Amino acid sequence: MSDDCIFCKIIEGDVPSYKVYEDENVYAFLDAEPVSKGHTLVIPKEHVDDIHGAADMDYMWEPLVKVSNAVKDAFGAEGVNIAQNNGEKAGQEVFHLHFHVTPIYEGDELDITYNRSSLESGDSVAEEISEQL
Amino acid sequence: MSDDCIFCKIIEGDVPSYKVYEDENVYAFLDAEPVSKGHTLVIPKEHVDDIHGAADMDYMWEPLVKVSNAVKDAFGAEGVNIAQNNGEKAGQEVFHLHFHVTPIYEGDELDITYNRSSLESGDSVAEEISEQL
Repeated sequence: MSDDCIFCKIIEGDVPSYKVYEDENVYAFLDAEPVSKGHTLVIPKEHVDDIHGAADMDYMWEPLVKVSNAVKDAFGAEGVNIAQNNGEKAGQEVFHLHFHVTPIYEGDELDITYNRSSLESGDSVAEEISEQL
Repeated sequence: MSDDCIFCKIIEGDVPSYKVYEDENVYAFLDAEPVSKGHTLVIPKEHVDDIHGAADMDYMWEPLVKVSNAVKDAFGAEGVNIAQNNGEKAGQEVFHLHFHVTPIYEGDELDITYNRSSLESGDSVAEEISEQL
């Protein structure tokens, strides 16, 4: 637990939240500024800033899938986006690892746009990444 | 394996890819239309269309974290976005479960914008989702 962390306070019950799911290691609750109805955050109870320190948290997986299923089914969504941001530059606002699970409904405009290029040669790029593994 | 699936063909080696990581269950390779340098896809070798059928694939977690770390470190990214889309409406293009791991660099414009509302009362929303769990 981190004293200054709003999500740690939510887990502790010191800040209210709309709880969707809880088990020994994982907590899920409605995002306070939802992109769509049912937008849920899935977080580990143990404080970790972001994905980079979370290699041993594979207990996150099953709840993440289950919540994704439930978020889709609850209000008849057409699809679900899962998003997880690391670093201020990447749009992270709360520095406690969290997955956004966002249902997409018929008629929703998908606001996510990407500027995609075409991969000309990835040999050296793949190699550079592999070398970190 | 699904005969019509491009990602299954990549795993089999029938379609070339720039491999970043591979283990018994998981394969990671460069996205052919990268959003940024090092944009990598992490996929299970077993064919599953999307997250909804993947509750038993917790072996995905550790490679996902490790690849995220490597993608960040390889070229000195400031941050990393993880994104996983389910359903055509949600932007899914290849129907084999995949996680986008996208590094964000200093100077990059973050193109992801969300229309966020404010959660007035989430009681019934949280309850509807919980009931699916």
